[in-house]
Amino acid sequence: MFDTLIAGGRVFNGGALVGADVAIADGRIAAIGRDLGAARETIAAQGHLVLPGGVDSHCHIEQVSGAGILNADTWESATRSAAFGGTTTVVSFAAQHAGQRLTEVVADYEALAARGALIDHAFHLIVADTSGPALTEDLPLLMGKGHRSIKVFTTYPKVRMDDEQVLDLLMVARDCGGILCVHAENDGILRWASRRLQASGRDAPRFHPASHPAAAEIEALSRMAVLAEFTGQPIMLFHVSTAEGAAIVRAARGRGAPVIAETCPHYLLMDVSEVEGDARHAAARICSPPQRGAADRKALWQALRLGDITALTSDHAPYRLDASGKFAAGPDAPFPRIANGMPGLETRLPLMFDAMVTRGQLDLAAFVTLTASRPAEIFGLTGKGRIAPGFDADIAIWDPAREIIYGADDLHDNTGYNPWEGRKVVGAPVTVLSRGQCVIRDGSLAGVPGHGRRVPMEVSVDMRPSAPSEGAMLTD
Amino acid sequence: MFDTLIAGGRVFNGGALVGADVAIADGRIAAIGRDLGAARETIAAQGHLVLPGGVDSHCHIEQVSGAGILNADTWESATRSAAFGGTTTVVSFAAQHAGQRLTEVVADYEALAARGALIDHAFHLIVADTSGPALTEDLPLLMGKGHRSIKVFTTYPKVRMDDEQVLDLLMVARDCGGILCVHAENDGILRWASRRLQASGRDAPRFHPASHPAAAEIEALSRMAVLAEFTGQPIMLFHVSTAEGAAIVRAARGRGAPVIAETCPHYLLMDVSEVEGDARHAAARICSPPQRGAADRKALWQALRLGDITALTSDHAPYRLDASGKFAAGPDAPFPRIANGMPGLETRLPLMFDAMVTRGQLDLAAFVTLTASRPAEIFGLTGKGRIAPGFDADIAIWDPAREIIYGADDLHDNTGYNPWEGRKVVGAPVTVLSRGQCVIRDGSLAGVPGHGRRVPMEVSVDMRPSAPSEGAMLTD
Amino acid sequence: MFDTLIAGGRVFNGGALVGADVAIADGRIAAIGRDLGAARETIAAQGHLVLPGGVDSHCHIEQVSGAGILNADTWESATRSAAFGGTTTVVSFAAQHAGQRLTEVVADYEALAARGALIDHAFHLIVADTSGPALTEDLPLLMGKGHRSIKVFTTYPKVRMDDEQVLDLLMVARDCGGILCVHAENDGILRWASRRLQASGRDAPRFHPASHPAAAEIEALSRMAVLAEFTGQPIMLFHVSTAEGAAIVRAARGRGAPVIAETCPHYLLMDVSEVEGDARHAAARICSPPQRGAADRKALWQALRLGDITALTSDHAPYRLDASGKFAAGPDAPFPRIANGMPGLETRLPLMFDAMVTRGQLDLAAFVTLTASRPAEIFGLTGKGRIAPGFDADIAIWDPAREIIYGADDLHDNTGYNPWEGRKVVGAPVTVLSRGQCVIRDGSLAGVPGHGRRVPMEVSVDMRPSAPSEGAMLTD
Amino acid sequence: MFDTLIAGGRVFNGGALVGADVAIADGRIAAIGRDLGAARETIAAQGHLVLPGGVDSHCHIEQVSGAGILNADTWESATRSAAFGGTTTVVSFAAQHAGQRLTEVVADYEALAARGALIDHAFHLIVADTSGPALTEDLPLLMGKGHRSIKVFTTYPKVRMDDEQVLDLLMVARDCGGILCVHAENDGILRWASRRLQASGRDAPRFHPASHPAAAEIEALSRMAVLAEFTGQPIMLFHVSTAEGAAIVRAARGRGAPVIAETCPHYLLMDVSEVEGDARHAAARICSPPQRGAADRKALWQALRLGDITALTSDHAPYRLDASGKFAAGPDAPFPRIANGMPGLETRLPLMFDAMVTRGQLDLAAFVTLTASRPAEIFGLTGKGRIAPGFDADIAIWDPAREIIYGADDLHDNTGYNPWEGRKVVGAPVTVLSRGQCVIRDGSLAGVPGHGRRVPMEVSVDMRPSAPSEGAMLTD
Repeated sequence: MFDTLIAGGRVFNGGALVGADVAIADGRIAAIGRDLGAARETIAAQGHLVLPGGVDSHCHIEQVSGAGILNADTWESATRSAAFGGTTTVVSFAAQHAGQRLTEVVADYEALAARGALIDHAFHLIVADTSGPALTEDLPLLMGKGHRSIKVFTTYPKVRMDDEQVLDLLMVARDCGGILCVHAENDGILRWASRRLQASGRDAPRFHPASHPAAAEIEALSRMAVLAEFTGQPIMLFHVSTAEGAAIVRAARGRGAPVIAETCPHYLLMDVSEVEGDARHAAARICSPPQRGAADRKALWQALRLGDITALTSDHAPYRLDASGKFAAGPDAPFPRIANGMPGLETRLPLMFDAMVTRGQLDLAAFVTLTASRPAEIFGLTGKGRIAPGFDADIAIWDPAREIIYGADDLHDNTGYNPWEGRKVVGAPVTVLSRGQCVIRDGSLAGVPGHGRRVPMEVSVDMRPSAPSEGAMLTD
Repeated sequence: MFDTLIAGGRVFNGGALVGADVAIADGRIAAIGRDLGAARETIAAQGHLVLPGGVDSHCHIEQVSGAGILNADTWESATRSAAFGGTTTVVSFAAQHAGQRLTEVVADYEALAARGALIDHAFHLIVADTSGPALTEDLPLLMGKGHRSIKVFTTYPKVRMDDEQVLDLLMVARDCGGILCVHAENDGILRWASRRLQASGRDAPRFHPASHPAAAEIEALSRMAVLAEFTGQPIMLFHVSTAEGAAIVRAARGRGAPVIAETCPHYLLMDVSEVEGDARHAAARICSPPQRGAADRKALWQALRLGDITALTSDHAPYRLDASGKFAAGPDAPFPRIANGMPGLETRLPLMFDAMVTRGQLDLAAFVTLTASRPAEIFGLTGKGRIAPGFDADIAIWDPAREIIYGADDLHDNTGYNPWEGRKVVGAPVTVLSRGQCVIRDGSLAGVPGHGRRVPMEVSVDMRPSAPSEGAMLTD
Repeated sequence: MFDTLIAGGRVFNGGALVGADVAIADGRIAAIGRDLGAARETIAAQGHLVLPGGVDSHCHIEQVSGAGILNADTWESATRSAAFGGTTTVVSFAAQHAGQRLTEVVADYEALAARGALIDHAFHLIVADTSGPALTEDLPLLMGKGHRSIKVFTTYPKVRMDDEQVLDLLMVARDCGGILCVHAENDGILRWASRRLQASGRDAPRFHPASHPAAAEIEALSRMAVLAEFTGQPIMLFHVSTAEGAAIVRAARGRGAPVIAETCPHYLLMDVSEVEGDARHAAARICSPPQRGAADRKALWQALRLGDITALTSDHAPYRLDASGKFAAGPDAPFPRIANGMPGLETRLPLMFDAMVTRGQLDLAAFVTLTASRPAEIFGLTGKGRIAPGFDADIAIWDPAREIIYGADDLHDNTGYNPWEGRKVVGAPVTVLSRGQCVIRDGSLAGVPGHGRRVPMEVSVDMRPSAPSEGAMLTD
Repeated sequence: MFDTLIAGGRVFNGGALVGADVAIADGRIAAIGRDLGAARETIAAQGHLVLPGGVDSHCHIEQVSGAGILNADTWESATRSAAFGGTTTVVSFAAQHAGQRLTEVVADYEALAARGALIDHAFHLIVADTSGPALTEDLPLLMGKGHRSIKVFTTYPKVRMDDEQVLDLLMVARDCGGILCVHAENDGILRWASRRLQASGRDAPRFHPASHPAAAEIEALSRMAVLAEFTGQPIMLFHVSTAEGAAIVRAARGRGAPVIAETCPHYLLMDVSEVEGDARHAAARICSPPQRGAADRKALWQALRLGDITALTSDHAPYRLDASGKFAAGPDAPFPRIANGMPGLETRLPLMFDAMVTRGQLDLAAFVTLTASRPAEIFGLTGKGRIAPGFDADIAIWDPAREIIYGADDLHDNTGYNPWEGRKVVGAPVTVLSRGQCVIRDGSLAGVPGHGRRVPMEVSVDMRPSAPSEGAMLTD
């Protein structure tokens, strides 16, 4: 006898929607099909879609920013919000600051997550200090424990890694079977642009996008692609936002560079004009890289269709619209002192389902691949991202006709605002299971903090090079 | 009670290999998983891989060539050979000659297939005469019956379509929901090269490749991509063989042109030098486009990795090495009078499994996608190409350790030779099912002629254009 | 004692404007500088620019069109018009029709020119029939006499050459030291588009541009570039009109293909909207390829700056706006029956001087290079296109401040209309010399019919290939 | 009466070789042609080529390196060597070190040159410290005096400018009408590669090229192109050495980025294998970027043909092969402690004449353009680089048949070795004039130190952008 049977829905299996039941035993999927036999509990899914729970491989939870601001979410609030949005696995960050021991940083973050998380999770390790035992002892040790993703920034004063450090980290990733993720914007261009804008009195929130010109992303993505190609070591380029950035990814992959790329709903669906008006409205939507224009969105959609960008994540970065968050430097703070980021864990999947499936910009297979299966593969999250026998029973049951109009403060996280206020989406999850347990049942919270477990990464990104890299001679 | 249970294998489901049984009822897959319940018959699959049967969307069966030579295979011999190689669906050709009525041509080919085929099948319609009712009556009628793929040649005197005819056929495909497939080589270059080679006495079989220079493919692929882009109508580019050809496909797709491409094992694994030696050896391997060099193979592999080429087919074109086939014009015939083509239905999957999975050039998911799932999708072969509940139980059970060394005459078709003689492959199918019936059981033939049915195409190639095509104004 | 001294001007010499006198003896430039000594006649050039006379390497004079319409100009009227516009050398066409012997065609055209021309000239040979002795006897003979430029059309029923014929002509050009010029538009696309437009009643003059879509040019330019690369033999691509066309030229040259390109003032300065309104206005401006849009013009200007396009010609094709010309098929003729072309010999240089020098789109050196020096080099017109000792004294003295507003019928040719009516240009020639003789003196006609001589071509286009072409094996 | 007449030669004038005399008065060219009248002195040039003296816009003279090593040449020795090689103008460097006032640095270098130079000259200003009055006072002042070229390094610890500093300098260049030149290699890659090589004991001279991998150049050229495009301000990319670098230049120019590029004879003619053998031989040829392989040379030649690279310079950087120069850190110094550079002032023109003209890789017009005319234009060296009335009489009279086989120590500089030892060139200057005075007469030194004058730059690089740059909004 199975534990649970999800009966009567259309299940995403084998790359297609099929009419089938899903049987669950011991937290895993036991069988898919008809006439599967009895179960202790049956969840009716008639008229619904039974999809893999989402995997959000880029979100910031309970993290202290470089500027010292604690973001608004705890593991409990963030994963609650994620679950309401159909996501069952998150990859957040363990962020080292200069002088901190990486192993201790990670232990602290692990403890927070273990206590609060309603769903399963993993960490990217933000490395901000490569001195001491970081490269030789701590990272190898942590990678051995399944922390196989390193995150670096090419900008921001307290965390910026220079190219030599990036190369050193790529070597650690290579030696330990890890992957390097990059926030890639050119530091000099950002500082120069910001300085000149402020010098001419243009420091209101609406000038934030101008301080992150496309050229900054273009240059840094291009540089990171060279380093990936030089070492033959995969790099995940976070949040590609420009048409030229998408073209760089395509060109780099075309010449065999081991480059992977993600983008986020706000680069696909939100225009930069949202950040160019009212200061409070703008501040709520400031993020980096910033939203761009119509030509960029078109190119990013095309990059999804072409398989150049293979992950859709939220970059959830939650700050309240008050002195604890966005306005820590005062209500009239200039743009460089307003925390960057927006909540997105809960809206990511409905926004993309609506755009891709309901409105038909892509199709359901692409939706599942980009928001769950492929991120799980890229980061080696075994058992996640698919509905197939033996996989974790992380499942989101969607009502494709459910309509939501986002409100001012309707998310289940702690940010207190929704940047998508007023937007209508059609298609939303109604019941969500994490390893066979309902986290959301019929639209109501059913999960419990502490249920979530850390998923060790088994990174095995398949980016077979067509030839040895130029750096191989030096690195071997 | 299920009809059949394939028990104990590792099943390719949900994009991954999972330990599971597969239950079959009424010719379809009923369930996948553990503890599925009883079945009338159980096929043990311990240690084996349970994969979707192959879909070979480009092969020539019982077809009369432009030169009037009947190819060596009947539907029985060809599909027998296919089944031995793990293939359970073939798309062959119904070939119109000038003056013939398309509807009659198709009826004749359908009858031959219905009588002889051991496995399911469909047809591409080779259009060689667009006069009379061909475009206005016959093609719309045939497309309504599920014959939705048109095949054209840009060269060869009796079948060559000029660009205006290709545009007309693209309009028919658009209006009726079809797709156009193209053998794309520049006619003028071929004629010029062949004439000059012969004029200088270079007419031995080994000069065949020189008579089909890369430039001929490059030009014609590029031209077809322009026509696809101009009309906004998908084109499948058959047998891409050159590095430049792969680059043209990538560039065309990158700018949004609705272009799909296939290649074949002999372009990935056989060097042109095989056609440059002994006349009989060469004649046996003459095909068009010809095999190329190492740089081309490398680029084609990269195109598979990048998703630029999305189908792997055999281009099975069987001619015996005697006066009935290759040497119809005599044993010393000059290259232009030797029939083009090689048998490939039976070797396609083992060759590619060995290269991709055993030797690791790609992975199992890519193997299944390129040889079965994606061709089935491209040509709308509903129920084919996947293992998932509700899909046809077209299944190949593979022994990944089985070793074959190809012999001189070991194929189960009627050609009497194997162009891969001497080559070792590791990994081969042992039992093959078509709609739940064993066609091959433990390596022995179990299928019966006439079992195979025609699969109507539901072409719905998803090539959403990013913008209206230039030709739209003219065509609407 | 010199014959003539052009004194006090700023002379374009050595790639720059220098204050200097120009001394002329025996029809040639004898010296450039100060204190040159006495001359029989002195032309004062204070405040003026002393430039090489223009070389217009693409114009149609006294030519019978494929449709049998004689164009409006005689050699006298055409070269008179050219001289008024500062041009001192023209390359026109000797046009074979099917069945005509090339040698006789050329003799006829030579005789017409010898009788009427006020300035020096040469011919492109339009080959429309490659049968008989055309390739083996006539072209070699004619090339030996300095007729070294072959012109082919890829479209138009009576003159169209297919790819095999183009390859044959490239071989003749190679063997005899010639160059091939091409009007490159895809025949099938043109016929298809024209047919569909007419079938839906869209046959007014304003639909002419729609019948020559960009795709037609893109495809054919791309194809010709492949043939040039395949044979390693230079091709001059006439009248590039699209952004994509310019990109094809750039890409082809970048990979070493021996491709040269020209464009014309109407592609740089006239919008397609000029052909989209009133029928008579449109008919007067119908030409092929048609005028395009702003993005195309921008790209063509950039191609000039980058050196991708290296010749600016008029494509002068004069037809009167009456039953003898544009309206030979009646005043309401559908677009396919209206002769293509506009007068341009006289306006080419003032239009380009105004755009490039007066308005600063490029500079004077580029103006001289593109309209005189480089065309002379490309076609081996020895002694033409430069002011330097030993060169022919073909000189245009320009008043850079002279302002012209073009009128309805102010040109000195026989067309009776000016397509640039209403346009103001600043900068125009005032005195023009051909081999030291004034053809225009202070704005008045001074030349005499019959003065002009044929200039034998010494084609030596320098397009050193970086590697042997693929076709070399076949052609040697 | 003229001062001097160069009689009977073939003169490069108007872009072609013409038989003419050249008359000189007051140090300038007065006239070119036949029958020019009398002169006080006549130089017979029968059988010789009369070419503009070379302009070497990249050489290091009497400069203190970052490592504190004085290079081997004085202005006297360097310009003597240059003159023997047919060069009549050099642009050397005034190198600021941290803490030095730019105005004082420049004054010092000007004084050295004024005292020692045999030929005319100008300076690039190496900026190593942007603090204090450098950007706001000193550079504007110096630019007002004709010092309009700024040189930066993206690497080397004591002089490295980061991207923000480069942007600031681009703004100064924009505001004052200057141009920025860059030695572009990625600092991080160089440091990382050098560190890893040394860590594994690979520190012999032959490992120098491995410490400057192609990726370092590729990355930095690409980055500089982005900054040029971002600001719309021209950048001259020094010494492009790789195929990919040439492609980056071509792509950047193609999209309208204001990028200019040079390369040097050793990247066109010397293989990296010259630096991979014997330590002393290697040390003598160590330079940065290093020599590369055959594919790179082929691509660089193609870039010259295509006009992507428009200047050929020596990068003369002279160090003796002893403790005063290359081996300042000892005879067995590891590669990072060996001074980079080779002598090249004297060999530049004969090497390139031999390759381009004698061997026919390009032609004489390209030789003159790349080595004299275009560098003079790029850096606004008025009166230099051409033979035309009014230009300075800087003339090199070449014997195109003169053969030289380079010896071990046959140059006229102070380095004591010739890296081209053993190489034969055909074509060399015999008599060289600087402003009408012989510096070399019939192969013997005739010049005097102090004759040379500084040429103020009138930078007016014409790189008209096709659209406003992204940075314009920020910079205006």
